[in-house]
Amino acid sequence: MRTGVWLVGARGSVATTSIVGGLALRAGLAGPTGCVTELPELRGPALPAFADLVFGGHDVATTPLCKRAEALATAGVLPGRLVAALPDELAAVEEELRPAPGVGSQAERAAAIVRDLTDFRDRHRLDRVVVVNVSATEPTATAHPAHADPATLRDALTGPDEVLPASSLYAYAALTAGCPYVDFTPSTGARLPALHTLAVERGLPYAGHDGKTGETLVKSVLAPMFAMRHLTVRSWSGINLLGGGDGANLADPAANAAKVESKQRVLGETLGYVPQGGTRIDYVEELGDFKTAWDLITFSGFLGTGMRMEFTWHGCDSALAAPLVLDLARLTAAAHAAGRVGPLTDLAFFFKDPLGSPTHSLGEQWTRLAEFTRALHTGRESADGQAG
Amino acid sequence: MRTGVWLVGARGSVATTSIVGGLALRAGLAGPTGCVTELPELRGPALPAFADLVFGGHDVATTPLCKRAEALATAGVLPGRLVAALPDELAAVEEELRPAPGVGSQAERAAAIVRDLTDFRDRHRLDRVVVVNVSATEPTATAHPAHADPATLRDALTGPDEVLPASSLYAYAALTAGCPYVDFTPSTGARLPALHTLAVERGLPYAGHDGKTGETLVKSVLAPMFAMRHLTVRSWSGINLLGGGDGANLADPAANAAKVESKQRVLGETLGYVPQGGTRIDYVEELGDFKTAWDLITFSGFLGTGMRMEFTWHGCDSALAAPLVLDLARLTAAAHAAGRVGPLTDLAFFFKDPLGSPTHSLGEQWTRLAEFTRALHTGRESADGQAG
Amino acid sequence: MRTGVWLVGARGSVATTSIVGGLALRAGLAGPTGCVTELPELRGPALPAFADLVFGGHDVATTPLCKRAEALATAGVLPGRLVAALPDELAAVEEELRPAPGVGSQAERAAAIVRDLTDFRDRHRLDRVVVVNVSATEPTATAHPAHADPATLRDALTGPDEVLPASSLYAYAALTAGCPYVDFTPSTGARLPALHTLAVERGLPYAGHDGKTGETLVKSVLAPMFAMRHLTVRSWSGINLLGGGDGANLADPAANAAKVESKQRVLGETLGYVPQGGTRIDYVEELGDFKTAWDLITFSGFLGTGMRMEFTWHGCDSALAAPLVLDLARLTAAAHAAGRVGPLTDLAFFFKDPLGSPTHSLGEQWTRLAEFTRALHTGRESADGQAG
Amino acid sequence: MRTGVWLVGARGSVATTSIVGGLALRAGLAGPTGCVTELPELRGPALPAFADLVFGGHDVATTPLCKRAEALATAGVLPGRLVAALPDELAAVEEELRPAPGVGSQAERAAAIVRDLTDFRDRHRLDRVVVVNVSATEPTATAHPAHADPATLRDALTGPDEVLPASSLYAYAALTAGCPYVDFTPSTGARLPALHTLAVERGLPYAGHDGKTGETLVKSVLAPMFAMRHLTVRSWSGINLLGGGDGANLADPAANAAKVESKQRVLGETLGYVPQGGTRIDYVEELGDFKTAWDLITFSGFLGTGMRMEFTWHGCDSALAAPLVLDLARLTAAAHAAGRVGPLTDLAFFFKDPLGSPTHSLGEQWTRLAEFTRALHTGRESADGQAG
Ligand SMILES: NC(=O)c1ccc[n+]([C@@H]2O[C@H](COP(=O)([O-])OP(=O)(O)OC[C@H]3O[C@@H](n4cnc5c(N)ncnc54)[C@H](O)[C@@H]3O)[C@@H](O)[C@H]2O)c1
Ligand SMILES: NC(=O)c1ccc[n+]([C@@H]2O[C@H](COP(=O)([O-])OP(=O)(O)OC[C@H]3O[C@@H](n4cnc5c(N)ncnc54)[C@H](O)[C@@H]3O)[C@@H](O)[C@H]2O)c1
Ligand SMILES: NC(=O)c1ccc[n+]([C@@H]2O[C@H](COP(=O)([O-])OP(=O)(O)OC[C@H]3O[C@@H](n4cnc5c(N)ncnc54)[C@H](O)[C@@H]3O)[C@@H](O)[C@H]2O)c1
Ligand SMILES: NC(=O)c1ccc[n+]([C@@H]2O[C@H](COP(=O)([O-])OP(=O)(O)OC[C@H]3O[C@@H](n4cnc5c(N)ncnc54)[C@H](O)[C@@H]3O)[C@@H](O)[C@H]2O)c1
Ligand code: NA
Ligand code: NA
Repeated sequence: MRTGVWLVGARGSVATTSIVGGLALRAGLAGPTGCVTELPELRGPALPAFADLVFGGHDVATTPLCKRAEALATAGVLPGRLVAALPDELAAVEEELRPAPGVGSQAERAAAIVRDLTDFRDRHRLDRVVVVNVSATEPTATAHPAHADPATLRDALTGPDEVLPASSLYAYAALTAGCPYVDFTPSTGARLPALHTLAVERGLPYAGHDGKTGETLVKSVLAPMFAMRHLTVRSWSGINLLGGGDGANLADPAANAAKVESKQRVLGETLGYVPQGGTRIDYVEELGDFKTAWDLITFSGFLGTGMRMEFTWHGCDSALAAPLVLDLARLTAAAHAAGRVGPLTDLAFFFKDPLGSPTHSLGEQWTRLAEFTRALHTGRESADGQAG
Repeated sequence: MRTGVWLVGARGSVATTSIVGGLALRAGLAGPTGCVTELPELRGPALPAFADLVFGGHDVATTPLCKRAEALATAGVLPGRLVAALPDELAAVEEELRPAPGVGSQAERAAAIVRDLTDFRDRHRLDRVVVVNVSATEPTATAHPAHADPATLRDALTGPDEVLPASSLYAYAALTAGCPYVDFTPSTGARLPALHTLAVERGLPYAGHDGKTGETLVKSVLAPMFAMRHLTVRSWSGINLLGGGDGANLADPAANAAKVESKQRVLGETLGYVPQGGTRIDYVEELGDFKTAWDLITFSGFLGTGMRMEFTWHGCDSALAAPLVLDLARLTAAAHAAGRVGPLTDLAFFFKDPLGSPTHSLGEQWTRLAEFTRALHTGRESADGQAG
Repeated sequence: MRTGVWLVGARGSVATTSIVGGLALRAGLAGPTGCVTELPELRGPALPAFADLVFGGHDVATTPLCKRAEALATAGVLPGRLVAALPDELAAVEEELRPAPGVGSQAERAAAIVRDLTDFRDRHRLDRVVVVNVSATEPTATAHPAHADPATLRDALTGPDEVLPASSLYAYAALTAGCPYVDFTPSTGARLPALHTLAVERGLPYAGHDGKTGETLVKSVLAPMFAMRHLTVRSWSGINLLGGGDGANLADPAANAAKVESKQRVLGETLGYVPQGGTRIDYVEELGDFKTAWDLITFSGFLGTGMRMEFTWHGCDSALAAPLVLDLARLTAAAHAAGRVGPLTDLAFFFKDPLGSPTHSLGEQWTRLAEFTRALHTGRESADGQAG
Repeated sequence: MRTGVWLVGARGSVATTSIVGGLALRAGLAGPTGCVTELPELRGPALPAFADLVFGGHDVATTPLCKRAEALATAGVLPGRLVAALPDELAAVEEELRPAPGVGSQAERAAAIVRDLTDFRDRHRLDRVVVVNVSATEPTATAHPAHADPATLRDALTGPDEVLPASSLYAYAALTAGCPYVDFTPSTGARLPALHTLAVERGLPYAGHDGKTGETLVKSVLAPMFAMRHLTVRSWSGINLLGGGDGANLADPAANAAKVESKQRVLGETLGYVPQGGTRIDYVEELGDFKTAWDLITFSGFLGTGMRMEFTWHGCDSALAAPLVLDLARLTAAAHAAGRVGPLTDLAFFFKDPLGSPTHSLGEQWTRLAEFTRALHTGRESADGQAG
């Protein structure tokens, strides 16, 4: 099952790490640490092999992919030896990268994206192309009446307005080109009624939002722990210090707000109440791609006794995100092949702000993911009958 | 369902906190924070009400219960106002405490314990008495041929040898008196072939070992997180600093060894491999009942990138343990009433070193506990058919 | 040497803790832990004895002092037994508290303050009264032409404008009444040319700003450590989580800004360059008077190797501040008695944002403080000849 | 002033980092971050220039220096580009390394060391050679009557006994060869009456013990902070997790004991009392040269209020130690040139367990170091008249 992985933001840290890692896996130069689809519980015939993945993508930046890869190696995100060992493979992917269409009406730009996608699919005789958004996080989008249904939207795009935020324009184009769409960022993406309807009309699945790689991952196991033990969380406060491209972008208060909001949701939905405290994101350039998050949790137990826990997480965001991007591409491709349509709520395991209103407990998300994947491998419908 | 809760080590911190808390719940002076049996998923008709619990116990110490309670209040473990509000209730429990039998052969001491238990049951017309060991942790016990079966054991106890460690002598006496037995400590307790057979012969359930209240609780959600994300844990090192009676006892290297061993098991069994590092327990008197545990976890992700996490847990051990003691008494009483026999492996949720070879993932343990409890409430057999 | 300690904000946490502590020291119910003037290096005849301190003060609030003291005892800031043991002494101080003058022109309000101060001094036949500002932190004040000299200021105060922020109006009144003035808060206080001139004219010393009790205290020893070792601090980021009255007030962005600025100064001035990162203050009501600060420091060493340090400080702000308030009152009284005039830059040890442009290294501040105090005890002028 | 730096343990991590760094400084490829002798307060004409340092040494191991350097680069301790840029320089140092004499009586081995040192000095026409011990930490040495004076010692060394531990045999040989001796390890080194007398007889200075690079460095500023604030430290507990050669060696309980003891001394001597708690050293291979230390400090303040602080230090031991080795070589050479004789107690700044009974406060140690160095630069005797 030859599968295209089209990355929006293809020259960014997450995309570059995903590409180098995918090529290294294909070449047998690296193992699948961090790829959950290679765990015994998820592995199986329905997923495209790493060797069957073909990479391409859009970006507004023009830095050569190998330069980005070298920079990531210098920063300790990637082993330099892998970049050195894959010059031809990286050059081949470079050939598949296209500038983000930037001129004309949104309809014209969407058409250009569609062309890039279909050309890519044809050129490589791919069974399908999964579009994954790993571009910079957008500010919270403003509502527009044309978001309601596909026909109105199609009309509005031909006008002069910026009707859709970039992430949704990519989603629109992807669905139009018959490609499933995954949003790894907190941006709007396919989360608009018009795009949902479009996906259903075209028989396409979509997934998102916001890859769960750090503090929120830890929250998604610690919050259920407090809940299962009937301990009352009094406050949960945290700070995320990060550099890198994503950090610089999140220093923008608007983008920051979108991210912080999706981070806090986990707590309220898991505990059934919102404890005091909040989450901060601060940009500290020198930290580069290695993020440090610190959280303080105060809680009370039997007879009101006050206690506390704190944790520090020093994670490399791109190294945590990249294998999940590959996992999502594989799972979404398999879901498409199996005829799944609409929001893939069983992929909540991967996201800070998952589609649907599912659990935020990582353990329960894992159970659902394992069942979903098993159904794909065995060709049966998933538990909650989402098959198309 | 009037239920006796007989605490071995009844004047210790955990026992005293359990008693004060149980009395406060009965009097409506405190809520059930920390009691998992009061969560919606577990609550139900099969469990004895808090108001139906009657406390008694053995101890080698003679400090009056109200003195211990006042000391715990001063130390911030209990609210002083509860101790002040329950003088008569505490005095009534004081009447039910008995000195730990200390003279004669082990057979004679066991007989004395049996008498204390049956007198207690008769005096209060109790449906049953659950014996819970919350006494000081013993050194690892030495094997003895008489541990193999009940008959040989019964004979050997009449001789001059210390055939059984204290925890097992209490278990033997409890089972002989027809009482289910729970070991909240890491001591041997009912974990001997002779005692297992005795429990089965008498149609009694038993549970253990070693209440999971601090660092190991956190481990039981973090280790599965790393496993589910296919991240390789390179090292996991920790230190536990604690004062209090338990801390002083654990400063003894032999008891320490038993505890440390049960703490490390979680990792190997969850991850499928044993990472580097180990766990230390150090006695720091000044910390009193508030324990501080610090853990450092180094792990590697995609393409080998090294990352790390650390956490500090500042917990009040007795406040964490006491509600679980009440939970275990209620659940074991209900299991006994429902005819469950032998090791209650579905109670793994509560223990660092659970009976059987179950999962160490708190999430999976929770699922099993919920199913087990639901079966008790609905009167059906539990999933794995453990009914008597 | 009978010395009045007049507290602006006398019903606040810091003031109440200072008062209870001062009374407890006088009654021999508590030791001087936290009082640096009781260390062997500083102790001596020039300082008024604790028994010679008489408390009074202003506040806009009206909560009875003993109620505030009880609330602080409940919160764990003060031992309840001290509050219970000092009912008469607290009632006596209650008699000395006055409402903050709130009506009329600023000149009229200043006159009312002056009257309260002189009445207090006369009533108790005090040798002198030291005014210490421990009221809520003000927003950064706006400049006004009348801040330039005493005469212009005196005129302007009679008009309808709020020429001075409250802290400076108290300073103005204190100096007018012949009282030395100490600012324990980051507010403007005596830091205006007109007030400096007034102090010099009246032969009065003054001190400030912003008691150094938590994160900044730690910074003032860690930053010199990095400097002395020629290690390059790359980033220093921190977050302060605090509840209590002060926390609520600092949640106001304007007050927060004043505080954060004075916190960051230490680093730049100690290291000679400003590392990346910043400091946050967040209000978390549930933490009460116990503040948690977390700081991450990344630094590089020989040949550029990157390293990091982090610390968590769980301090009780009022318990840390109160003994320093007593120290400052004693030292400023002694300085006044010895004829010291103008800014007491040798008291930098106590402040986050000390007057003058002295060192921020706690060790060097200590050396200067010890010399200054020795000079007071021996009656000699201090090293830099500040005697009047 | 051409100065030899003879490293005992020349192929170890600290030595290799010192050599690569020294060569890089000479070649202008790196700056002096971490070298305190390059701070404005210490810089000056009395110190040999980096360009005047010539390296040699002994080791029992035979791994080529460039292999060790490459391994350290892979481990992130050194920048690989420096190793790559200095092949000839490293090869030249390789020529100056000698196997540690291992056969014959201790007298014969000492004579061999003396020969290696004098040959080195002659071959390079060096003004002097400073011997610095950076070899593996020894177990605590056993006393021997011959340790009392040089003559008895000289005799005893000709016999079959291992009269001196290796570190002291090197010190004996160094002094015999007219070379000042520095012990960067906690081993015995020159700390024997016989060797002290020998040093005085030969007019030679010596320095030690145990380079202060991590947790103890932090302790030496935090402990004085608590003392200066009159806060009572209740407990101070810590754990050091480290890999690397030094870690493996310290896993040996005997060596561990020597190290732990020198670590605890700082607290007792700074605070005037020994708080509860202790320090652990655990070997975790995977951490390599990057050590993680965690310390918990509980303290009480005014009126007994309990508070706490914790810190985590993630340092690269060799990168912290190497510049200090260069500093010590420069300072000791200058001291020798200036005629200083006997223990250089003014170098306490560099050591966990300094010679003499000086202060453990880093600030005071800094003041003494600065005065000492200034005296060397200006040619005057140091404050406490140690000139020869
Ligand atoms: N790394 C993680 O752990 C993680 C987790 C969750 C979400 N995310 C999200 O993934 C995204 C990528 O993160 P990153 O660290 O790679 O950031 P990055 O800044 O390194 O890369 C973003 C890339 O997107 C490109 N881009 C920006 N606007 C574009 C547009 N309109 N069209 C096409 N390309 C565009 C940029 O030129 C850049 O190359 C961010 O939105 C981040 O919030 C990352
Ligand atoms: N507190 C927790 O979070 C926790 C968690 C897991 C296990 N535990 C275990 O629970 C037990 C109790 O802890 P604690 O903090 O209450 O300790 P504790 O020292 O306060 O109490 C132990 C009590 O047992 C009594 N005792 C000792 N030997 C006895 C004997 N032979 N017969 C009867 N009584 C005896 C002692 O006199 C004492 O009163 C310990 O074994 C501990 O390891 C506690
Ligand atoms: N606690 C510390 O460690 C610390 C350290 C440095 C500085 N400070 C400063 O000390 C001050 C007091 O802190 P706190 O925790 O006691 O706060 P708090 O809120 O408990 O007390 C402040 C008191 O000031 C009173 N007040 C407000 N405006 C006033 C006015 N115009 N005149 C007279 N009284 C007035 C309030 O009514 C209140 O009683 C704050 O400015 C704080 O920033 C405290
Ligand atoms: N790195 C630090 O921060 C630091 C701080 C204080 C003290 N120290 C001490 O410095 C020493 C070196 O540390 P390291 O990390 O380089 O250790 P390492 O194990 O990497 O190096 C020690 C070297 O000494 C050699 N050696 C052992 N016995 C010898 C002998 N008898 N003669 C000659 N050479 C011998 C070994 O072969 C090895 O090459 C240790 O004693 C350590 O405790 C290091
Ligand atoms: Na911490
Ligand atoms: Na930490």
